[in-house]
Amino acid sequence: MDQTGRLSRLRSALEENRLDSLLVTHLPNIRYLSGFTGSAGALLVSDRDCILFTDGRYRTQAKQEVDGANVDRIVIARMSPLMAAAEWLIAHKRRPSPARVGIEPESITAGMHDRLASVLNGRMRGTMKARLRPAPPLVERARMVKDAAEILLIRQAVELGASLFPIARKKIRPGVSEVEVAAAMEYEARCAGAEGMSFPTILASGARSAIVHGRASAARIPRRGFVVCDFGVILAGYCSDRTRTVHVGRPSREDRDLYEAVLEAQQAAIAAVRPGVTAAEVDGAARRALRQRKLSRYFTHSTGHGLGLEIHEAPRLAEGQTQKLEPGVVITIEPGAYIPGQCGVRIEDVVVVTSSGCEVLTPTDKELVII
Amino acid sequence: MDQTGRLSRLRSALEENRLDSLLVTHLPNIRYLSGFTGSAGALLVSDRDCILFTDGRYRTQAKQEVDGANVDRIVIARMSPLMAAAEWLIAHKRRPSPARVGIEPESITAGMHDRLASVLNGRMRGTMKARLRPAPPLVERARMVKDAAEILLIRQAVELGASLFPIARKKIRPGVSEVEVAAAMEYEARCAGAEGMSFPTILASGARSAIVHGRASAARIPRRGFVVCDFGVILAGYCSDRTRTVHVGRPSREDRDLYEAVLEAQQAAIAAVRPGVTAAEVDGAARRALRQRKLSRYFTHSTGHGLGLEIHEAPRLAEGQTQKLEPGVVITIEPGAYIPGQCGVRIEDVVVVTSSGCEVLTPTDKELVII
Repeated sequence: MDQTGRLSRLRSALEENRLDSLLVTHLPNIRYLSGFTGSAGALLVSDRDCILFTDGRYRTQAKQEVDGANVDRIVIARMSPLMAAAEWLIAHKRRPSPARVGIEPESITAGMHDRLASVLNGRMRGTMKARLRPAPPLVERARMVKDAAEILLIRQAVELGASLFPIARKKIRPGVSEVEVAAAMEYEARCAGAEGMSFPTILASGARSAIVHGRASAARIPRRGFVVCDFGVILAGYCSDRTRTVHVGRPSREDRDLYEAVLEAQQAAIAAVRPGVTAAEVDGAARRALRQRKLSRYFTHSTGHGLGLEIHEAPRLAEGQTQKLEPGVVITIEPGAYIPGQCGVRIEDVVVVTSSGCEVLTPTDKELVII
Repeated sequence: MDQTGRLSRLRSALEENRLDSLLVTHLPNIRYLSGFTGSAGALLVSDRDCILFTDGRYRTQAKQEVDGANVDRIVIARMSPLMAAAEWLIAHKRRPSPARVGIEPESITAGMHDRLASVLNGRMRGTMKARLRPAPPLVERARMVKDAAEILLIRQAVELGASLFPIARKKIRPGVSEVEVAAAMEYEARCAGAEGMSFPTILASGARSAIVHGRASAARIPRRGFVVCDFGVILAGYCSDRTRTVHVGRPSREDRDLYEAVLEAQQAAIAAVRPGVTAAEVDGAARRALRQRKLSRYFTHSTGHGLGLEIHEAPRLAEGQTQKLEPGVVITIEPGAYIPGQCGVRIEDVVVVTSSGCEVLTPTDKELVII
């Protein structure tokens, strides 16, 4: 991992945004910059220092995990890591001008923000104050473009994820509950080294396939109909995400057409991915393909999303999203069509943007599987 | 579920706290008051109305789930549920005095709070303004005391959780990886109807048993030593939590003493639970028992926590916690002792406070199991 490069790029971004430091509270951002994976922490990055604040539970783990090249010091907080960071800011206040401390407004609660501001202002009265300023999503922007080591990790996660689909194919039979299929996949993922699933496994059979987020339920797979399987693993911190839709029993003409239409839309979107195109253009390619089949009104979600340390990251492939793709961006391509009360189909792969187009990670045959 | 009672008690609490309404953003609180289980929502409760704001993904689910007696209206937001709630507040502003809208400061991000305030103040300029005020944890306080229906659900979750321990006993063998044991337990939990585990399964063997939060890892169980198994399920929304520590191979005299000391501490804490005692007193009972064995410095965490719709709820059984217990409070009792680098033991049950003491949910033999 190029964590030193990450830190120096963040420092340039701080300067451009006229911030003296950034108080990083979003845990995946802390992990990205420091290597620390604990559940309680704050990372204070200034041009001079990079300090990790955590609590006593993580004393040993923090020492083992943090990148010595990046993190200058680990502070074990008596109470909350954030309050320890406030104490540190008070003890290391600067002259001549008040410090402009960036915060991550979407990763700090209003309550935490108020306590932080009150400690800083209360204790620094009459001396130099620190001013809290909402910072733009600087670390999230950097995380959007993955380096080679990250792409390798995502590839490994996607491969492990892909290896679960044959289990689903084997387990899916009329009368078996959705949750039994999911449980078998999750058992295999765990035994193969996954830290967990990257989201609750979706296994939606029969009429439930029309529900976009149909988590595996106690419902039994009917004798005939689609089964949407949408699942992912977390391996070494990185997420995978894949959807395959199979058909139990002989599909009708309409079922086959629906599947073909979604597959065409997925292929059209993949074909549209290359550096310089916007997220909205990729979304548009999928939507256009479904429109030609008069199915676009059944495509009720966005075409995809970035993924990495989190299952949902920037960019979002949706209407109006002007973010341009560039090499190293990793996204899902997952159009679908859902006929309310009847059935639904979704097909999803993870792709990485290359210099000339994109590469589908772990490509497999996407012909309709009939069970 | 007595959701109507919940709402009327909340309305009294609003009045006592001089709030015209409460904008509930903590999802377990929304579920508690309305029955809605979706991942995006806001619930606006005033003396006149109770309105659920969610998004298009949950149109059908919200209608199915919400308690018609409590929720007067479901509003499907185009963008975020919170912004839809802001729009509603603007459209339904009151005279003669500005509305005092309580927010849940620990369940709203600083960014969301700022956007909400800016929409309310920007759009309501010159007319009646709504003033956002951080509210005390009113719903959390109510949730601390469980009603009969909730205790039944927790009992069922605890029973399902307890049924996983025999699987661990059977799977734990020298050379088997910790994660294989966890995977077998989680598979069984899923097949038995659990929505998921209530936290990442802890399976810490050998020297890893000294780590308080030793998530199941690829480490193989050694020929001799303790294995701490701490695990829980979510069933119908409610959490279970249980820890058992077993010993692989013949335990030394010291190992047996350590186990006995922790068991004594756990029994002392359970014996201390009754209405009117404080959370700190229960914690003190466990700590005192370990002090008599000169082990209190190895007990590095609190004695327990409330649980229900969340795995960690009020009260916290720790030093300085003045919260008094009352009938219906459900807590874990889980003292432990951890000798750094060597070994650790923890024993945990869920108990419900009764009118005269407490009941251990699903009591089982706690003699040291030797494998």
